[in-house]
Amino acid sequence: MNEFELIEQLIQGFGDLTQADFIATGAGDDAAVIDLPEGQQLVVSTDTLVPDVHFPAGARADLVGYRSVAINVSDLAAMGAEPLGITIALTIESLDRSWIQQFAHGIAVASREFKVKVLGGNLARGPLNITMTIHGSVTRGDALLRSTAQIGNDIWLTGILGATRTYLANPTHPQSPIETLLAQRDADAVARYFLPHPRVEFALGIRNIAHGAIDVSDGLASELAHLTKASKCGASICVNQLPVWSGLEPLDAIGPDDSYELLFTADRSDRPAVLESAFTTDTPVVVIGEVVTDRNVIYTLDNKQVSPRTGFDHFA
Amino acid sequence: MNEFELIEQLIQGFGDLTQADFIATGAGDDAAVIDLPEGQQLVVSTDTLVPDVHFPAGARADLVGYRSVAINVSDLAAMGAEPLGITIALTIESLDRSWIQQFAHGIAVASREFKVKVLGGNLARGPLNITMTIHGSVTRGDALLRSTAQIGNDIWLTGILGATRTYLANPTHPQSPIETLLAQRDADAVARYFLPHPRVEFALGIRNIAHGAIDVSDGLASELAHLTKASKCGASICVNQLPVWSGLEPLDAIGPDDSYELLFTADRSDRPAVLESAFTTDTPVVVIGEVVTDRNVIYTLDNKQVSPRTGFDHFA
Repeated sequence: MNEFELIEQLIQGFGDLTQADFIATGAGDDAAVIDLPEGQQLVVSTDTLVPDVHFPAGARADLVGYRSVAINVSDLAAMGAEPLGITIALTIESLDRSWIQQFAHGIAVASREFKVKVLGGNLARGPLNITMTIHGSVTRGDALLRSTAQIGNDIWLTGILGATRTYLANPTHPQSPIETLLAQRDADAVARYFLPHPRVEFALGIRNIAHGAIDVSDGLASELAHLTKASKCGASICVNQLPVWSGLEPLDAIGPDDSYELLFTADRSDRPAVLESAFTTDTPVVVIGEVVTDRNVIYTLDNKQVSPRTGFDHFA
Repeated sequence: MNEFELIEQLIQGFGDLTQADFIATGAGDDAAVIDLPEGQQLVVSTDTLVPDVHFPAGARADLVGYRSVAINVSDLAAMGAEPLGITIALTIESLDRSWIQQFAHGIAVASREFKVKVLGGNLARGPLNITMTIHGSVTRGDALLRSTAQIGNDIWLTGILGATRTYLANPTHPQSPIETLLAQRDADAVARYFLPHPRVEFALGIRNIAHGAIDVSDGLASELAHLTKASKCGASICVNQLPVWSGLEPLDAIGPDDSYELLFTADRSDRPAVLESAFTTDTPVVVIGEVVTDRNVIYTLDNKQVSPRTGFDHFA
């Protein structure tokens, strides 16, 4: 089987994931042709995963595939955008058919969960590298930006921090099928690491309530620095309020952590609306602090100011 | 300088290349937000470049950057689409500032030539890998597909085949500035290899005339096989008509070759219109054969049937 036959088999394997009303021409031509819903803007983001940086080398291909999709979906959630489709650029050392098919299975599982279609891709030979580009849509002007947090806003966080740190401190290779792991996602650090849970539905629900928003892909401290810098403000965080993975110190959970949770700000008067959306979409969410004028991020634990570790720097 | 500071510096360096009326939110947020022109469809394609597969390892970063953009633009040209913007996912072993800035310069030169904006990107640590995703637009229903060649159509080819083979047979590292090399692109195999010339303007001109279309990214034989398969037809190619790089045998030029020229079909009655568009855009173009009913591709040289080498298979 050569490269082109495998690509054709993959496209066939994805089945209805490559088809949608909005896909005029799908995978298999020089490019995909998409109809964007009327009155909507296109939202685009790209993310790369490399072994031993973004997942342990030797990790199961289906888990890598799922994680790759989820990480890209998380960027759309942080914009309050609705996912449409992904392109998948896979670079791999050899045409390992079983690895690639398992990888495609993980992509399919995630794509069904997050309602995202497969638009096409690229297959190249080289050290393993997965780069996906995700496309979504948002009603004109409704995108959640990093730059629109307002003084006095509550700072909210979905889910829980630190599961990925817990997993990476003792990385193992799970044996269960991906469907079993998915059911354990909220209770098992391994499952939580490989199967991030971007809060797409919830983000769509708070799109008209939230102000600044960002996803926690590097760590809370790092993301808060980006958010406050873009919004020209500061933040006061109550570390006691942080939802932290069992067994982890709160101050550690603030540091490097790619939990892909949603960090956003909203007016205090919108608390009931945020909680309503959380209830509807079964999303844990909590207020962890407040947007302040002074352009620093202050962390307080037991009423004392503390210093967190900083976020993840790929090249540090 | 850390990762985030470098990214900020790169975005600033791209300047007006990151700004356009259609870019509502550009690089620097979780995703870019784009206004697609009304009545237009989105056209998306992704391509990866890996050293020693898609360019000689150690090649100058600006040439790699230019080539990466051009290769992606070529896919849009093959769809008859107008380029809007690219996302750039760069994976690199270390934060080599001078390499990255030279790479960005090559991207900027190509982006200005092909009128494509920089939407955002990703920077990750790992073996060198460049994956770009290009976004363009086309009036609804006007995209040039692989599947719409019609029996009796002329088969046309822009430019010339084989320069990349000539370069790769004796790869050297050019010393001249990219601006000098660009001026030599039609006469120098090294320049032609690193600085492909996708026929965007020409493709836009023949969008309503051409039927099936594909870009020559693997080799003429390989692309003709894709085109005829998708269009459920065959082709008869007159090898004597092929425009071939000086010093190369025509049969070699049919084989593996990533010249990024445009291969398309059109009704015989549209010859004047094709040539008019070629004249207007200064594009060399020639009829190399005909679309036939029998589902084979027949090559004839001096009135005798000949067998070409097949196209490039990454994993062969």
